[in-house]
Amino acid sequence: VFKIPRGTRDFTPDEMQKRRYVEECMRNTFQKFGYKEIQTPTFETLELFTAKSGETIVNELYSFTDKSGRELALRPELTAPVMRFYVDKLQMEPKPLKLFYFGNCFRYDRPQKGRYREFWQMGCELIGSSNPEATSELIALAYHALKETGLKNIHLKIGNLNYLEQQIEKTVEGINLDDCWPGGAAVFKSDMFRLIDKEDYGGVQNQFTNVNVESGKTDEFMTFIDSGSTKQLERFIDKEELDPYKEIISYLKKFGVNQVEIGMTIARGLDYYKGIVFEIDAPVLGAEKQICGGGVYDMVKSFGGTDVPTAGFAIGFDRTILALETEKYQFPTSSIDAYIIPLYEELIPKAVEMLQNLRKNSVLADIDLLRRGIGKSLKYASSIDAKKAIIVGSKELESSSVTVRDMRSGEQRMIKIKDLQQVLK
Amino acid sequence: VFKIPRGTRDFTPDEMQKRRYVEECMRNTFQKFGYKEIQTPTFETLELFTAKSGETIVNELYSFTDKSGRELALRPELTAPVMRFYVDKLQMEPKPLKLFYFGNCFRYDRPQKGRYREFWQMGCELIGSSNPEATSELIALAYHALKETGLKNIHLKIGNLNYLEQQIEKTVEGINLDDCWPGGAAVFKSDMFRLIDKEDYGGVQNQFTNVNVESGKTDEFMTFIDSGSTKQLERFIDKEELDPYKEIISYLKKFGVNQVEIGMTIARGLDYYKGIVFEIDAPVLGAEKQICGGGVYDMVKSFGGTDVPTAGFAIGFDRTILALETEKYQFPTSSIDAYIIPLYEELIPKAVEMLQNLRKNSVLADIDLLRRGIGKSLKYASSIDAKKAIIVGSKELESSSVTVRDMRSGEQRMIKIKDLQQVLK
Repeated sequence: VFKIPRGTRDFTPDEMQKRRYVEECMRNTFQKFGYKEIQTPTFETLELFTAKSGETIVNELYSFTDKSGRELALRPELTAPVMRFYVDKLQMEPKPLKLFYFGNCFRYDRPQKGRYREFWQMGCELIGSSNPEATSELIALAYHALKETGLKNIHLKIGNLNYLEQQIEKTVEGINLDDCWPGGAAVFKSDMFRLIDKEDYGGVQNQFTNVNVESGKTDEFMTFIDSGSTKQLERFIDKEELDPYKEIISYLKKFGVNQVEIGMTIARGLDYYKGIVFEIDAPVLGAEKQICGGGVYDMVKSFGGTDVPTAGFAIGFDRTILALETEKYQFPTSSIDAYIIPLYEELIPKAVEMLQNLRKNSVLADIDLLRRGIGKSLKYASSIDAKKAIIVGSKELESSSVTVRDMRSGEQRMIKIKDLQQVLK
Repeated sequence: VFKIPRGTRDFTPDEMQKRRYVEECMRNTFQKFGYKEIQTPTFETLELFTAKSGETIVNELYSFTDKSGRELALRPELTAPVMRFYVDKLQMEPKPLKLFYFGNCFRYDRPQKGRYREFWQMGCELIGSSNPEATSELIALAYHALKETGLKNIHLKIGNLNYLEQQIEKTVEGINLDDCWPGGAAVFKSDMFRLIDKEDYGGVQNQFTNVNVESGKTDEFMTFIDSGSTKQLERFIDKEELDPYKEIISYLKKFGVNQVEIGMTIARGLDYYKGIVFEIDAPVLGAEKQICGGGVYDMVKSFGGTDVPTAGFAIGFDRTILALETEKYQFPTSSIDAYIIPLYEELIPKAVEMLQNLRKNSVLADIDLLRRGIGKSLKYASSIDAKKAIIVGSKELESSSVTVRDMRSGEQRMIKIKDLQQVLK
């Protein structure tokens, strides 16, 4: 017996029905916001991903070699491919470009609960505007896309990497990091970002102590990242710098987002995110609660394109499904309207005619294909949750009728074939 | 600038709209016939594909190695993965199982016009019934799935590998192939199948001549594969063997298929196809006209499962799109209902409120995110084919109104904001 590769999944009809439903919900919301779908290949050149994320990412990639010797990799995420597509072919399109994607990604790490080697992401990229209303619409879209799937409890947090960087700099002001931190100021900052991202606040305090920051200044920093309102941020951030952030938050309300938190602890890698960043959590998922992340970023220029404002987000599709299931969301189900059971072999052609007629008129109908007896066929009809069974017998056919059985009540009655469609609707 | 890998494609918003439309059409038809969607991983163990198609397939696969050293491959087709899934997890489900899939596949060969290294297939597998009405429903489904996309001209041909094999055997009756054909009778047959599949009828005649078949018998064989009706087949095939084939064809009419051809030249590989085979062509595509292939096959047992009748087909998704385009099919387009243009920066918040309200009420609306002047904004609205532009100015707002411009006629009128939704619908 052949095995499924480790860390990957097969999806049953029930699972696929849920997944297509959520996919459709999100696609509709993206389109409602004027975003248009694009698609890129499942693999890209390896250098595309190392250019974006550095050489260490190679260990987390599925890579292989082309016939011409070029190294390729299954995509670990979709922003780099979309930017490659943009720089290559879409730079001349009228701005802003509002693009979305839905695709599978691959990660070559140890499979864990809720983490798979093949997983799905939906996301949007906004190219060409960095106005507050534009960034706000993007964030609102992420929020609504998740809400529209039926998720009850999600938390949106908005951060700002510039503020965070500034406050780190302010905290270590006057300290020569080149002397006391291996790699100097840049590494100090990125180490700090990593600790904040891991929510390791003890580590944050230690790192400041290690370079002899006085405890008062460290406390001040901890107060900053703990800020719960723009009011509190005013203590740390200059007015003209804070205003655009406030504006984004105030537009969010107009875009129908009623809940938003200040998230100064959002410390996505500084490699290409700039300024505004945001995350959406589904608390029902516990430790692995983040289901969306995004922000303003800068990649086009380093990919060889003409500089242009860009922002985007990605939603973890598998975690979204898991969150809905954990919240016990009632996914819509589809059961067939009618299951046709011909009682004898000679009656099959007539039964197929009826079937074809019903299907043509958009009745969801099916037929016994195994020439089973009535008992087994009714059992099968019940197992697929058919609403009605249509029993085709010789006697009934003499009067151009069939027996229609309600599968829930068990009630049976004779119906003229010409009236079938109406009875089943 | 990073390049897209050779033989792969990026899809623009316009292309994706077409693709999702056709995908949705086919999915709806599959579901109408009682088929349910499943999904398998993008890669499988390499041995799954070599078990199905032999070692030579390795040259046509993208393969790579797992962290545990196991060889994996991007799937070149989806029947083997579906059968692996079935044997592994679905054997106990009530029969028949009617499954469909939509997925990307990979082929490691030289890219040519219309042939890509990543391509998409949709297909169905019927597990658990080999009754004529069941096989016929499957074939009818392939036909309808293609017709429902809007394709005008397709040709369905139905063949039978048993008949073909028999007739080859009859033609070489009395000849000891072990003596005169390298590899003997089995290789002789599969060589013959390959020639017929390539439509190399000169080669077919030569091969018979090479083993000293008398020309009368060769002519008789050529007459057989040329059969254009079941009537003509009666000369070659015994009644009790021909009857199920006839029955399938007669059921096809009841399933709403009005055109079907006898296709004794269909010679899909004998490896796992058995008996009934079928193909659907789109003649508009010329040499690369086949857009669907399928038949009755036998794979479950060799995959370690309990023997069960299986049949299925795969539709080439990319070729279907190409055929529709070549037939100049008018794909549905979606243009937005309203493009909102705030005349001054101070009016943006009010404009966003309007936007949010319209979207909430299912009006497809968008807004200028670049704070452009009215001229540029109208040009953009026209470039995205917006039906109406909504110009938000201070004067109009004083009377709770906006200017609505019909983008086709250029006609403008003042509309109360509260009436907007109605005017736009």
